[in-house]
Amino acid sequence: MRERALIDDLLKPLATHPAARGLADDAAVLTPPLGRDLVLTHDVLAAGVHYLPSDPPSDVAWKLLAVNLSDLAAMGARPVGVLLGLGLGPGEDDGWLHAFTGGLARALERWSVSLLGGDTVRGLDRAVLGLTAIGQVEAGAALSRAGAAAGDDVYVSGTIGDAGLGLAIAQGRDEPDKHLLNRFRRPEPRLALGAALAGIASAAIDVSDGLLIDASRLAAASGVRVTIDLRTLPLSPAAAARTPATDAAYAERGSAGDDYELLFTAPADRRAAIAKLGATLRLPITRVGTVTAGEGLRVSGLAGQPIRPERLGYEHGEADLG
Amino acid sequence: MRERALIDDLLKPLATHPAARGLADDAAVLTPPLGRDLVLTHDVLAAGVHYLPSDPPSDVAWKLLAVNLSDLAAMGARPVGVLLGLGLGPGEDDGWLHAFTGGLARALERWSVSLLGGDTVRGLDRAVLGLTAIGQVEAGAALSRAGAAAGDDVYVSGTIGDAGLGLAIAQGRDEPDKHLLNRFRRPEPRLALGAALAGIASAAIDVSDGLLIDASRLAAASGVRVTIDLRTLPLSPAAAARTPATDAAYAERGSAGDDYELLFTAPADRRAAIAKLGATLRLPITRVGTVTAGEGLRVSGLAGQPIRPERLGYEHGEADLG
Repeated sequence: MRERALIDDLLKPLATHPAARGLADDAAVLTPPLGRDLVLTHDVLAAGVHYLPSDPPSDVAWKLLAVNLSDLAAMGARPVGVLLGLGLGPGEDDGWLHAFTGGLARALERWSVSLLGGDTVRGLDRAVLGLTAIGQVEAGAALSRAGAAAGDDVYVSGTIGDAGLGLAIAQGRDEPDKHLLNRFRRPEPRLALGAALAGIASAAIDVSDGLLIDASRLAAASGVRVTIDLRTLPLSPAAAARTPATDAAYAERGSAGDDYELLFTAPADRRAAIAKLGATLRLPITRVGTVTAGEGLRVSGLAGQPIRPERLGYEHGEADLG
Repeated sequence: MRERALIDDLLKPLATHPAARGLADDAAVLTPPLGRDLVLTHDVLAAGVHYLPSDPPSDVAWKLLAVNLSDLAAMGARPVGVLLGLGLGPGEDDGWLHAFTGGLARALERWSVSLLGGDTVRGLDRAVLGLTAIGQVEAGAALSRAGAAAGDDVYVSGTIGDAGLGLAIAQGRDEPDKHLLNRFRRPEPRLALGAALAGIASAAIDVSDGLLIDASRLAAASGVRVTIDLRTLPLSPAAAARTPATDAAYAERGSAGDDYELLFTAPADRRAAIAKLGATLRLPITRVGTVTAGEGLRVSGLAGQPIRPERLGYEHGEADLG
């Protein structure tokens, strides 16, 4: 497929926002909504690093958008638009491009986001996909990793460890399970929760590299100690069935990446508000820990005793700059 | 170098804007300037595609920023900040990272821009560098490729063809020349000119792929015919010395990419204003063509006759989405 066809036939239909100028100019022009702050994030997915080259291209597109929108969710922001950096290797043929852009179209529609611009590059060895997401939040209301205070509770949305099991399934290391595989390939950014948490949560982060390591980052940014109680770790039925009741197995769930749930803190007097929020959103929200004075992460095992997990999370040679 | 050191020691010092939140959050939070539109662009430079792996890393950083700021310039926007997608292969060792981030620091300072966020990825085969630039422009005043009207003049800033000769030098295909090589490796985005053209120019585009092909894009976006007169092509002394007085040689200059000058149109009654602007900015601005009713690009040769150049510009399997 020629570049012109890629842009005109596959990408322009995704550029529905007037700010995109039909992808016909050197840049997008966005009139910022009054009284709002803009939230900006950029994450990269590389074939062979973040996903398997054999993964369905539509799922890759979904995940590329989802991981960026998850960063917006962690800031309490609603998405406005995205810019795409589409770096293609020999493996990304016309069929891949059709499937990828089709999946991106569905994902953009799912979250009411539009493609605003970007760049395409051919001639790479393997695909490298960058996406910049632009969101908006009420002025001054953006959440932060900093802000947790001693006495706060620690919560996490959804279930934890599914995506790590899904990765093992995708790699053929574990028995197939559709729910777990789907949780790895098609994460759900918790946008509605994130937006609702502005004004409730004292700090938030998305669980991209593992609940434990992300909790330790929140603790560091807030200058507090966070203690996670593995007994309260919310497991899906499918994950629970694969998790023996050992500290090591629970710590493995808590250190698996790619769940894209929200980990957040809130003062104890917000418990009722948070319970109500979970009911409204039909999203489990589980209290998994406490904030105390001090620093660093502490982990309680299944007998309530302090444990030291071998690893806290997934780092695979990448790091998010914010 | 570990990721933490890369971020803390080399990247955080570049994140001076409060919107960056010290690269400590999941995303940047930017309070948009009142009465301004935001201009957003994302361009990718890949090792082996857009630059030579042997190019000095500080020049690669400069160019990565410059090509994106050039898109802002073409829209009449001033830069606010950037997000970086740093995809690294085995060739990008600690020395490369130090030199790259040092060069990026100097380039950011040169144009008063700050790093707001981004992502790093290791494990690629070769470096793939994405950058999102955010700019601002008075509300409603952003320039566009559309807007040229019959009777307008066509102008270009600076000199044309230098970077193409610089590329040949970098590849060892031509005799060394410091000026030409520098024009290829360290282009100057015409930000002051672009900002001043808001209200003067009827349409604008930056010359990234070759003056002729970019002129044809402006013509298509505006729905007019653009005629470029090769006799008026502004050549630097170094380029002129390597350009025999033939249509083919001049067309080659006009179809060389990477100059990052601004090509723009304006009504004939703005000639005095544009001459004054060039004098103020100490930047040559040359009238190189005309706009008439019709469509497409026409090229006049050195005898004033219509010619059909073999190629109009550089496309190297990439295309800018806007």
